[in-house]
Amino acid sequence: MNNFEYYTPTKVVFGKGTELETGALIQGYGCKKVLVHYGGGSVKRSGLLDRICQSLESSGIAYITLGGVVPNPHLSLVYEGIELCKKEGVDFILAVGGGSVIDSAKAIGYGVTNPGDVWDFYEKKREAEACLPVGTVLTIAAAGSEMSDSSVITKEDGWIKRGYSSNFSRPKFSVMNPELTMTLPEYQTMSGCVDIMMHTMERYLNRVDNMELTDGISEHLIRTVMKNAQILLNEPKNYEARAEVMWAGSLSHNGLTGCGTDGGDWATHQIEHELGGMFDVAHGAGLAAVWGSWARYVVSERPERFAQFAINIMGVEASGSDMETALKGIEAMENFYRSVNMPTSLKELGVEPTEDQLKEMAEKCSYWGKRTIGCVKVLDGEDIYRIYQDAK
Amino acid sequence: MNNFEYYTPTKVVFGKGTELETGALIQGYGCKKVLVHYGGGSVKRSGLLDRICQSLESSGIAYITLGGVVPNPHLSLVYEGIELCKKEGVDFILAVGGGSVIDSAKAIGYGVTNPGDVWDFYEKKREAEACLPVGTVLTIAAAGSEMSDSSVITKEDGWIKRGYSSNFSRPKFSVMNPELTMTLPEYQTMSGCVDIMMHTMERYLNRVDNMELTDGISEHLIRTVMKNAQILLNEPKNYEARAEVMWAGSLSHNGLTGCGTDGGDWATHQIEHELGGMFDVAHGAGLAAVWGSWARYVVSERPERFAQFAINIMGVEASGSDMETALKGIEAMENFYRSVNMPTSLKELGVEPTEDQLKEMAEKCSYWGKRTIGCVKVLDGEDIYRIYQDAK
Repeated sequence: MNNFEYYTPTKVVFGKGTELETGALIQGYGCKKVLVHYGGGSVKRSGLLDRICQSLESSGIAYITLGGVVPNPHLSLVYEGIELCKKEGVDFILAVGGGSVIDSAKAIGYGVTNPGDVWDFYEKKREAEACLPVGTVLTIAAAGSEMSDSSVITKEDGWIKRGYSSNFSRPKFSVMNPELTMTLPEYQTMSGCVDIMMHTMERYLNRVDNMELTDGISEHLIRTVMKNAQILLNEPKNYEARAEVMWAGSLSHNGLTGCGTDGGDWATHQIEHELGGMFDVAHGAGLAAVWGSWARYVVSERPERFAQFAINIMGVEASGSDMETALKGIEAMENFYRSVNMPTSLKELGVEPTEDQLKEMAEKCSYWGKRTIGCVKVLDGEDIYRIYQDAK
Repeated sequence: MNNFEYYTPTKVVFGKGTELETGALIQGYGCKKVLVHYGGGSVKRSGLLDRICQSLESSGIAYITLGGVVPNPHLSLVYEGIELCKKEGVDFILAVGGGSVIDSAKAIGYGVTNPGDVWDFYEKKREAEACLPVGTVLTIAAAGSEMSDSSVITKEDGWIKRGYSSNFSRPKFSVMNPELTMTLPEYQTMSGCVDIMMHTMERYLNRVDNMELTDGISEHLIRTVMKNAQILLNEPKNYEARAEVMWAGSLSHNGLTGCGTDGGDWATHQIEHELGGMFDVAHGAGLAAVWGSWARYVVSERPERFAQFAINIMGVEASGSDMETALKGIEAMENFYRSVNMPTSLKELGVEPTEDQLKEMAEKCSYWGKRTIGCVKVLDGEDIYRIYQDAK
């Protein structure tokens, strides 16, 4: 077991009707003006945005709004948000939406409080020294950004998708009403479930022997998401299932399932980021499409760990070697993805990259040869290219 | 599933050698003078106090010390600490010890920042509006006070033990090195394990259908503590087992295992508090001594929930009615307590109260008829008296 830090300062307010508490929650931070940040029209059409604004008004909180965040949120809107916040004296950002909106809010928060170009942080050129306080009203269970230190932004010039993590950006509070996720289309719901599972799977499949406590929590969390994803396939308005998935989404990426690990192997996320950047696919679906290829490429480095995954999570019966059990586990997870209509190849994802595009993604993912990714097996650009090939 | 709030702002720094980071951690809070609060001689004898003080000195942090905290910490020392902090201009309290020291630190923190008698909060006469920032270096895995909002203090005048909970007192950081718990005597180690288990059991055995995610985390946490308690019986210096128990102690009482519940049934804790107040027994041992009597007294109200407990935690095979399975689960838990040399009756606890003392405890516990306790079955003074009788 490794030493670890665990820091989750976000106050979670979870359950039915909780979005009405938003105004009262913000009041506690003594801010002067709030930027309400959101995405497309769904929060408007559903009336959620109105309810939130009414909650702010009845708490006497001044605010302005900025919508238009898209999935794989764009750097250009982040720049626009930064300018707006500076001009208007905004000192608190309320993100109403899913991970893309929250990530965009965090990026704006960095840009307002730090000098220079905010993209520097995402390019790992320097570290942020502050972030505006961010609160969230979550409408999509997926990214875990409502409790995490992460933010992922796409720079349109070159379609480069990069993540940056800092404790400064952990939301002050997150309001989570599972009812708000009930109208999500099936594809987005299932894509969210995959993203949630992957946040724990990437911590779980690593090089050390974790804490037993962490392993059991992780195994139960993944099984719970799988079970409830299948319920939601038939009953998208099942409150209990929506709630299980939503809370799993936060616990999966707030650090809990990483305690005592070596930090995990984030290669699948990094491999998907290039897909998201270039083809604008749904993040979770992209993860499902490449995970099996990644897993088969690296499994021989840690067959015993993949065997534990197979037995404790996928319910595979141990038989023969660890490697045999491990491979059955990978297959079982791909079968699960198929069962919830998620892709297990690029083709099923609806993406058919040219040879040049595959090479370009592999180059971008390895920062043009300047970095390797992963820890179960350390992957360079050539390895990444092969995984993209296998995933076609 | 119920709506819930979850708020755990404590930064956890966990693992070998982490106590050396204490000075650097405190530096981040910009305080002027620290009170280093501790208990008996063990932290002195072990050299831990010296290491902590050196860490403060090398970070340029001014401090004073106040030792002498006893198990079931006394109100008189809290008053002394409050006076000392006010006189010396202390603005941060570092608790070096177990739950008693941390609870005493929190009480001092309330007393310094709120007008009037600090005991008012523990008597539920009014609410605290602030608390000095508290940090901890944990040396006993048990109370969970290192991440919780709780503090339990004993007023010597009448030997009244009362708890008070407020988010203001959640520690800013907690340093947890499992190695620091290795020299604890077996009785204290096992007593700590029972306390940790009970913090989740009291949340788990309640009146609602919890979240499945919460239930599975709770079940795994309790099983993990049981398994590692038995390892520590034979190998008290097993680092991995100490670490599992220590981290379970924090997760068990930071709110995680209560998410989506009705808050749980805290009757066993409240029944034990009177024992602790009157006879100064080890808290966890006291809980073990009365739990079985409480469980049998209330089980008929929720046999299906106790049956789930029996099957998923105690490994009992379901057979016959829920009630039969439930009773086997209670027996199995008592057998576990015995297996780690914990008492399952007052006599085994070493306490033989007179009839008058039993009545006095029941009266105190029901606030002289002014409150009931528990939710699985709501208990009045007469019920509490019968449970003490059954536990003899």
